[in-house]
Amino acid sequence: MPRVVVDVMLKPEILDPQGQAVANALPRLGVSDVSSVRIGRRIEIEFTGEPDLDRAREIADKLLANPVIEDFAIRVADAEDEHP
Amino acid sequence: MPRVVVDVMLKPEILDPQGQAVANALPRLGVSDVSSVRIGRRIEIEFTGEPDLDRAREIADKLLANPVIEDFAIRVADAEDEHP
Amino acid sequence: MPRVVVDVMLKPEILDPQGQAVANALPRLGVSDVSSVRIGRRIEIEFTGEPDLDRAREIADKLLANPVIEDFAIRVADAEDEHP
Amino acid sequence: MPRVVVDVMLKPEILDPQGQAVANALPRLGVSDVSSVRIGRRIEIEFTGEPDLDRAREIADKLLANPVIEDFAIRVADAEDEHP
Repeated sequence: MPRVVVDVMLKPEILDPQGQAVANALPRLGVSDVSSVRIGRRIEIEFTGEPDLDRAREIADKLLANPVIEDFAIRVADAEDEHP
Repeated sequence: MPRVVVDVMLKPEILDPQGQAVANALPRLGVSDVSSVRIGRRIEIEFTGEPDLDRAREIADKLLANPVIEDFAIRVADAEDEHP
Repeated sequence: MPRVVVDVMLKPEILDPQGQAVANALPRLGVSDVSSVRIGRRIEIEFTGEPDLDRAREIADKLLANPVIEDFAIRVADAEDEHP
Repeated sequence: MPRVVVDVMLKPEILDPQGQAVANALPRLGVSDVSSVRIGRRIEIEFTGEPDLDRAREIADKLLANPVIEDFAIRVADAEDEHP
């Protein structure tokens, strides 16, 4: 099924407390070589026909991301994007 | 900075009401060729040294994903994964 | 403005890795008397007229919560629910 | 079990696209009397002893909320806060 992936992340200058919580929990797992964890959203949009990047951009702009605090990137799904 | 990306999505058989809400809102934007929207999480982990996939997998298993309801995929960030 | 609050939490038997991450991060803040952290969603619905609990329940059922993995509770906002 | 509830909502002036998506999906459910939907987080913190509001505030400040874009409110759980 043709699919578009939209990745939404907080802008780098915006604090991410949930990512920070994960980072702070790592020493208890014995992990000491992680400098940062950031948690965003990944949205998969399936089209009935050809995946439409312009359409996906419009959807992201209006319903998926807040441009004041978030950045997003859009791409047609490739082999690497097989459903996790 | 060496970076690992973890994509976490609800398993396909698990209902995603937030994705459904986005899908249901699309006709009002004039979009009628989207069959499905699924909303998951994208986590970026930065390592101080070499990105460590095994380590990232352990972190995902314990702190990022619930294996009963979610699937995840892990990969070293490539050019496509430039911060959105 | 008349307002309904919907609280959505993972069912108690469903693991919550994000809450677990926060719990695991607490010792580094010097906190040792927390036994559990669970992270859910709080949705505020404003009505143009009288807040309508039946309507809110229908919205929650279809667009806010996944009944397989989540529980939800609905109430009309009171003084305690002033916007945080 | 003594429990503290932390409600985290985006500040009123910050756009909430996920809430907007739910609001936009409502006409398809036949709902026309909702003026706004906002989606935040609800965090339940269980203490081993007495619930500690100061402690909970510190946890919220550092690991649960981003004060630049979010407001939070803290209270000891009461009967209304039975797990949804």
